[in-house]
This record gives sequence, C-alpha cells and structure tokens, in this order.
Amino acid sequence: MASEFEIIARYFSFSKESTCGDATTELSRVNDPESAATNGVIVGVGDDAALLKLGRENLLVATDTLVSDVHFPANTPPACIASRALGVNLSDFAAMGAVPRWITLALTIPDNDEQWLDAFSASLAGGCERYSLALIGGDTTRGPLTITLTVLGSPVNSHHQAKSALASRTRCLYRSGAGVGDDVWVSGSLGKGAAALRVLTQGRNPRGGWRIDDAQAEDLRASFYSPKPQLLLGQSLVNMASAAIDISDGLLADAGHIARSSGVTLALQGEALPAHPALAGLTDRKLARLWALAGGDDYELLFTANASRRDDVNALARRIGVQCTLVGEVTKRSKDGSSADELVTLDGEGWAKPALAGFEHF
Amino acid sequence: MASEFEIIARYFSFSKESTCGDATTELSRVNDPESAATNGVIVGVGDDAALLKLGRENLLVATDTLVSDVHFPANTPPACIASRALGVNLSDFAAMGAVPRWITLALTIPDNDEQWLDAFSASLAGGCERYSLALIGGDTTRGPLTITLTVLGSPVNSHHQAKSALASRTRCLYRSGAGVGDDVWVSGSLGKGAAALRVLTQGRNPRGGWRIDDAQAEDLRASFYSPKPQLLLGQSLVNMASAAIDISDGLLADAGHIARSSGVTLALQGEALPAHPALAGLTDRKLARLWALAGGDDYELLFTANASRRDDVNALARRIGVQCTLVGEVTKRSKDGSSADELVTLDGEGWAKPALAGFEHF
Repeated sequence: MASEFEIIARYFSFSKESTCGDATTELSRVNDPESAATNGVIVGVGDDAALLKLGRENLLVATDTLVSDVHFPANTPPACIASRALGVNLSDFAAMGAVPRWITLALTIPDNDEQWLDAFSASLAGGCERYSLALIGGDTTRGPLTITLTVLGSPVNSHHQAKSALASRTRCLYRSGAGVGDDVWVSGSLGKGAAALRVLTQGRNPRGGWRIDDAQAEDLRASFYSPKPQLLLGQSLVNMASAAIDISDGLLADAGHIARSSGVTLALQGEALPAHPALAGLTDRKLARLWALAGGDDYELLFTANASRRDDVNALARRIGVQCTLVGEVTKRSKDGSSADELVTLDGEGWAKPALAGFEHF
Repeated sequence: MASEFEIIARYFSFSKESTCGDATTELSRVNDPESAATNGVIVGVGDDAALLKLGRENLLVATDTLVSDVHFPANTPPACIASRALGVNLSDFAAMGAVPRWITLALTIPDNDEQWLDAFSASLAGGCERYSLALIGGDTTRGPLTITLTVLGSPVNSHHQAKSALASRTRCLYRSGAGVGDDVWVSGSLGKGAAALRVLTQGRNPRGGWRIDDAQAEDLRASFYSPKPQLLLGQSLVNMASAAIDISDGLLADAGHIARSSGVTLALQGEALPAHPALAGLTDRKLARLWALAGGDDYELLFTANASRRDDVNALARRIGVQCTLVGEVTKRSKDGSSADELVTLDGEGWAKPALAGFEHF
C-alpha cells in the first residue's frame, strides 16, 4: 500500500518548480524581466510550505486537513479542534522560518449546530488574534466533519526590511540545505503527541501501567489540542540553520525527509534525544521509545546547523526560552535511491523497521 | 435554520478589512509606508475571492470544497470530480476578473485506490495545463471523500503591465460596485446546473416527462462535470462592468448578493432570461422556471455595467464568442436591512419565496 508521501510524489508532483530562483540561497530576483515567463514557483510540492514569486514579493502557502476520527477523536470539543487545526498549520510556517499572515478556512460540518459553531469560531478568532492573522475567506459545506486551513504569509523580515537588505528578506528554511558536518538539533521534547493521544483515547492506565500525574496529563492534553508552533524559533533560525522540518510525522520519518532532500545521512544519538517527562512513567520502555522516535504530532523543529554555530544556537535557545538539544550530526552524502536505513541512523544502526517509519495516514 | 451565508456572516467575519485600499477603484497604494502596519486585507470574507496586499503586489485567494454526495453524486468518475472541482473554483476568479496562477489541493479519500488516484490526478494535471496553473502543494488524508481547492492569482494585467499603468494592474470586479441606472447582464444560459443534476441522478424522464435528446443530455453532463469558468469574459469586463458575481447559488440569490453588497435593487425581466435550451422540453414549466431562477451551479457571470457601455459589452461578447444577455436594470438604492423582496424584483414583483432563494447547503 502506498504511503501518503508516495501518493504525493506519484500523483501530485506534476507541476515542476521554475528555475527562477535558487531555493537554498537568495530567492527573489528583483527586476527579473523573465518573472512573467515562469510560473513563479520557487519551491512547490514537497517542503513544509510552497514558496512563490509574486512580482517583486515572495509568498508562502501551506495547507493541512484534519479529519474527525483520523486526526482527532470524534468527541473533541470544537474549541480544541480549531486551536489544533491552527497550531498544526502554523507549525509548517515555523519549519520554513516564515511569518504567517492570512488563513482561509474550508469547514465541512454534518449539521448547523450553533453551539458547536460558536465555540469553534470563538477559538479560531482567538488564535487569529494571538498570531496576528486575518481570516480572509473559505467555504462552509455540509458533510463529514473536516477542517482544511490554508495559511499564507511572507519570508521573515520581508515587510520590515529596508531595500538594501533584499537578500535576507527572501530567506527561508528548507528541508534541502543540510551539509556534511552539520549539527542536528531538536527543539522541545519528543513523544508528547503519541502520549497525549493515549491519554485522550484510553485514559492514564494503558496496558502495562503508566505512572503519570494529573498535571502531566493535563499538559499532554493541552499540547495536543493547542500545539504551540515554534514560529519564533524558526524565524530566528533563518540565518543560522541549514535545514529544518517540523516533527509531525515522527522524528525518524522527518529526519529521513531532511536526509533525502539534502542528499545526506543523519546520525542520531539515542541517549541525547529529549523524551517528554511523561514518558518516564511508562512501564513499557519499548513503547516509550516508539513514541519518542516515531509517534509524530510533536510539532517541534528538527534542524541542522553548521557546527561553528553551536554557541549561537544555544544562545538563541536561552534568549527565547525554547529548549534546543543537540541530538546528532550529518555524517556523509547519501546516494540516490538510498534506503531509510542509509538515510538515518540511530547509535550507528540503520532504522528501516516499518514499525518505526513514522505515522502515515495510508 | 441558519443558511450558509448567515453562518459565514455570523461566525467567520471576525477579521475586518483594512483601510489601505478602496475596493471599488484603485487598490494598490504603491510606496505606502503603512502597509506593514495594516493586515493587508483589501477585500476579505464575503466576495468571490479575497484580495490581499503583499508588499507592492496584489494577491487573490479563493477556496471551494466539494463533498461527495452533496456536491456531486457518489458514483461520479474521479476525472470528472477533478475537472468539476477546478471549474467551480476558477469560476470565482472569473467573477473577480482575475488571473488564476496557482492551486493547492486538500484531498481526503477513503482508501488508497490507485485507479481512482491515477484518473483524478491525470484530469487535474490536464486542467492545470489548460489554465496555465501550477499545483504548488496540499495535503492528502484518509476519510470521507472531500476535495478542497484553493486558487491563488493576480489581478488581470498585473504581471504584464508597465509601471505607468498601476491603476489598471490592481483592478478587479466586486459584488459591491453596482450603481443605479446600470444594466444587468448574464452570460451563457440558465438552469443547466439543475437540469444536469436531474439527468445525472434520475435519467431523462423525471416526473411529468422531459423531451431531451442525447446531444442535449450529453451537453448537460459535460457542463456539470467540466464547468467552463468565464475567465476571459471576467478579465475583459474589468474596465467595463461595475459589479460581478458567478451564478453558483442561483440567479436570484446571486442577484441578491450584488444588490446587498452594492446597496441597490436589481429589477430583472423574466422574458429576457436566457434559459438553457434543454429546459424547453420540460413539461413542468414551474420546474423549468425554478431551475433557471434558483437552480444554481450554472457558473455563468451575472454583472452590471453602466448603460453607456451597452455597445461595448455586446461587441466584447461577439469578439470572444460568449453570449451576454441584457436581463434587467439597477433601479434604486436599497435601505439597510432590506428584505430579499426589496433587493431583487422579477417583472416588478418581489421574490422572497424560500423555494426560490437559491441553493444552500444548510
């Protein structure tokens, strides 16, 4: 059965990117007379967001869909569905180091439940205010509960920068920039997405026992319902990191995306990985490991940066109050067609086990 | 029960438009030092597409969702679902007189059916080629069949115009520009959306009889599965029409949208309305009238233009080979809180009958 990634690569990658920009360096060719001749796609299908050239400006676009009973339990309160939809979408912008500005909402709901709509829209309005977003349009239809948000925005600094700083106004972070010798970093902690889903669906005592206090359980619930996108971290890393992705599919799967896009191998150190504290109370240690490595839905950033920037990353982490942990290094260039085992290693061993290949919908 | 329009007005209009542009005239304030201070929303929720200001450029965004068994019969071939989704979305751009350039696809499918995906993606790729669009991203999820397309693009001429023509490069058509004395026009023919749905769901002999030949039935099927958005007409009307909308909700409902947005009354002449030829063979004349007035899904343009431009509209219609029919006039300014009866009249009578209020999902 084809994975979600395979479906996108096989069926929906028919629009090729233009050659009007080099995605890893400077992107906007100001006064480029040929911009009208290209389709203006600098980065298309395959990164966390698309990057477009609109006249003299650059535009980022990301879309995510949440389906009831697939991406959240069917009994999830409407306010939590709205905050989760927004957090998940904004995490894509965090991974690009970009500034979200506008959203469109495509909302499919089974019936016209006023209480549901009141709570959903109040939560969405609150999120828009918190992140300085405008809801600019969308579509409301009847059917099985499905929420698609499309986020639009700009590279960081693009609307504050003086004309002389055109290079930095068009910089973003991509999956494709990791180089041999770079450090591999992860923000926050791992496994909280999977742990939260277990708390929400099965309570606090799954098979084998799990010692977790009320505060931890509540913290997991809150992080599931209102993921905090690492926007400030991503934006601050634009001139510091070489590649980035958000951990939505699971650490190993997302490390694989960076490795494949960059043509390198990422060597991770198991001891260094920052597991969420709630995982310590889980009796089944294999399960704890699985959640941290492959659970997904963590919405943290996995990024690479030249080893010479190690002090800068640590200083940034302290300054903005976001934990950043050094978890490995980029060891070598990979070959075309490298297997998952070759792209990402953990303590020197390959990790192609299907059970750890990350959360996929298909 | 609240209508789709009421839901949008009540729950999803919390982001107000900025005051950085006058939507009915010139929009882009080049070198506006305050652009970073506003949210850049020139036209937000409530027109066919949103109009945004991105630095020195203008961007249009429209989103539409199609749900299986609500917007198309569940047995619709995948190639037809793709072409219908694209046509419906591009019709919003036609109504704005804008140029679509990019699309994102949020596709929710119940299972990973390779034949289905092959046919859907080939059809979508063909449509993108036909309309010079790039598919730039999206999301593929598992769940009940739902397709959300978001179309992004530019005002007409924006990437071809010399700097001296900044006024025209930022013009679009809006629902809000109709003035007293304007002519009211409709493109193509009316009622084909409802007639096609009847052909597709009940065959050609519904209650009371319907004389329709094979060619007409096939034409209806084709127009339902592949609506032809009136992009060239809309773009050509940008400097000619005063207001426009696409007829997706039904003639009377969409006339009501223009009337309410413009603060005027639209007086339509029943005799003038261009019913689709297939409606002539329908024994039930009340049903034929209902389909033409309120069936919806016609994806033609309803537009207003100053009476002095009548020859220009007729010349344009001949030049591009699109039928444009004069169907009424804008008679007076309406008051705040006018009823549907006051906003749109047909042969001098008000039309507030709920049965004719247009197709709504709720």
